[in-house]
Formats: sequence, structure tokens, C-alpha cells
Amino acid sequence: MPNVSRLEQQLEFLRVVDALKRVERMTRLIQQPGEVARRENSAEHSWHLALMALMLVEHANEPVDISRVLQMILIHDIVEIDAGDTFVYDTNAMMDKAEREARAAERLFGMLPDDQKSEIFALWHEFEARETPEAKYASGLDRLAGMLPNAANNGGTWNEHSVSVEQVTRRNESIVAGSQAVWEHAKTWIEQAHSAGLIHSEAGQS
Amino acid sequence: MPNVSRLEQQLEFLRVVDALKRVERMTRLIQQPGEVARRENSAEHSWHLALMALMLVEHANEPVDISRVLQMILIHDIVEIDAGDTFVYDTNAMMDKAEREARAAERLFGMLPDDQKSEIFALWHEFEARETPEAKYASGLDRLAGMLPNAANNGGTWNEHSVSVEQVTRRNESIVAGSQAVWEHAKTWIEQAHSAGLIHSEAGQS
Repeated sequence: MPNVSRLEQQLEFLRVVDALKRVERMTRLIQQPGEVARRENSAEHSWHLALMALMLVEHANEPVDISRVLQMILIHDIVEIDAGDTFVYDTNAMMDKAEREARAAERLFGMLPDDQKSEIFALWHEFEARETPEAKYASGLDRLAGMLPNAANNGGTWNEHSVSVEQVTRRNESIVAGSQAVWEHAKTWIEQAHSAGLIHSEAGQS
Repeated sequence: MPNVSRLEQQLEFLRVVDALKRVERMTRLIQQPGEVARRENSAEHSWHLALMALMLVEHANEPVDISRVLQMILIHDIVEIDAGDTFVYDTNAMMDKAEREARAAERLFGMLPDDQKSEIFALWHEFEARETPEAKYASGLDRLAGMLPNAANNGGTWNEHSVSVEQVTRRNESIVAGSQAVWEHAKTWIEQAHSAGLIHSEAGQS
């Protein structure tokens, strides 16, 4: 049978990364009336983000190769299986995030045949570096994916963690590098949450 | 601002399809020692399936456009938000599946701007028809995605529902139309589960 050992290696990788369905993010599902929705996991988030990228591609600042965008998104959170999800407003945890994730990438991507290991590392580094049009668009939408449920859930984790207008803006403004149109729209969510008293302004507190 | 109403339509669609994270499948996560793993949902399944398609593409019988494969997979289960997941071994539920899903597609895809509605319908019909190389490969792997955790979980839902070797074979042999190599491998899982007494043979019962 051709390639059986490659296939077995690939299937073992696919079994191991099933665990991404167990990595919990801060973000909650979009709530339905009368409930506090559960937190989402990084696997279902990756699906939602990929679908966002597909549906909103016309709004990218530059033409992008949608295939590469989708591939980056599908693998972008796999390192969280070992490294955990890092809440973007947790400044301490953000400090050693890169180191934890690099170790995770070595172990997890290292399960694949060498050529695929190189390809997946390249995709992951490209996503993290945010330099190519595809990476700017994909990583910008990754921020949008955190904003969408918060805006729909009366402030969601912004409100739960008393995050300020300025923090939300700083943490998410990289959306603009991928899509100016999307960022313009996302800013209206921040304004609405502020107007509704769901998030406070640092300026307003002094 | 350009396209603001298109963007709002698209974002509303993306908010509504968040509910795919609430659609439970029969299949369970790959279990860890000492646990009965929870059932997976269709959103995280869609991510896992898309990653499978990306990692195993070298085993497709024919060259495939991986971008189209991934796009089909990302949207293939959205109709379940209204129609529910249909267990492939539930013969009665399988009978009106097509009708329930067609109604769901009309409502959900109908939220999108007309051009995108047409595109997503085309992707979905292509996946369901299993005629193009991309659809044969993608829908074949959709079967594999059900087999992978069952094979890893001591028979999983095959064993839970007393499904026979012959039923498992019939329900999954369409994998061969997308990838002969993958089907050859998947058949060894069925044989192993049978040898281990986790699934029975109809022939063996007489």
C-alpha cells in the first residue's frame, strides 16, 4: 500500500489535535434569550473564523489568496493544545505566550512528515508575523471573531473583565491592516457598547 | 462607507451561524484515559474535517482544488442549525433529511447577499451531489471523520448503537470514491474493531 507510514503519521496528528476541542477561550457563544452562553473552544472558533474569512473576503484591503488564508486559520490555534488560550487582555500571560507556543508547535507539528511539518510551520509563522496580505487579513479577523460575540452579548467579556474602551481599541485595531471596512464597522460596536455603559472610557474615569 | 449594507448582512449571517456550535452530533471526542468523552458539535467537527482534508490531500484519487474542498467543508453542515444532525445509521431520519436540509438552506443561505447566496448554494449542492473530485474527496473524508473517533474510542457509537460490520462498511465505503488509500486504511479499523468484539458481523450472528 503506498505511503502507509505517511498516512499513519498524518492520522495520528489528526487524532492528537482533536484535543483543540477541549481548549476553552474566554469568549462565549452568542447568547440566546435568557441564558449565559458557555465559553467557546478553539476548534469551533477556528471554524467560525475560517467562515468569516470566506464570507468577508471582498472587504480585504488587498487581494488575498483565500486558500492560504483558510489554511492559516485552520492551523493557527493548534499550539493552544499545549500552550492554552491566552486572553488578549491578560498582559502577564501575553509575555511568555510566544515561548510557550513555540514549544507547542515543535511538539505538535513535529508529528507530521518533514515536508508537511515545514509547510505548517511556514503557515503558522506567516500568520503570527502579520506581514503578508493574507496574514494581515486572517489575523485581523481573528480579532473580529473575539469582538463579534462581545458586541452581541451586551459587552460580554469586555464587561466581565472591566476592559476599557481604550484597551478594546488598542487590542483590536490591527483589524485595520487587513480590512479598513471591517474595522470601521467594528469601531461602531465599541462606540455602542460605550454609549450603553457596558464598557468605560479611561478618560471618562479621571 | 462602501458596501455597508452588504457587510451588515454578512455579519448577521455570521452571528446566526454561531449556533452551529450548539448542534450536537452522535460522535464523541477522542477519549482520554478514564473518561467517556462528550459528544462533539458540528462546528468543531467542521474544523477537524477541514484540517483532515488539508493534511490528507496527497491521498486524493484525483488532483483536487484544495480551496474549493475547504470552502465546501466549512459550509457543509450549516443547514444542521435548523435541520439538526442526522445520525447516519438512523434509517428513518435519513429519509426526510434532504427535505429538512433544503428548507434550512433556503432560510440560512438566504440571509446573504444574492451573489453569495448563489455561491454558497452551489458549494453545498456540489458537496451533496458527490460528483466532482473535490466533492468526492470532501464527502468521503466526512465519513472518515465519523470513523476516526469510533476507531480510537473502543468502537464508540458503533458499539453504543450495536451497528454491524456490514452497516459500518456500507455507510462509509463512499470514502473510496475520494481516496482509495484512505479507505484501505479505514477498513483496517473496522477489521480491528470486529476482531476485538466491539462490533458484530451480521453473518456471524446467523
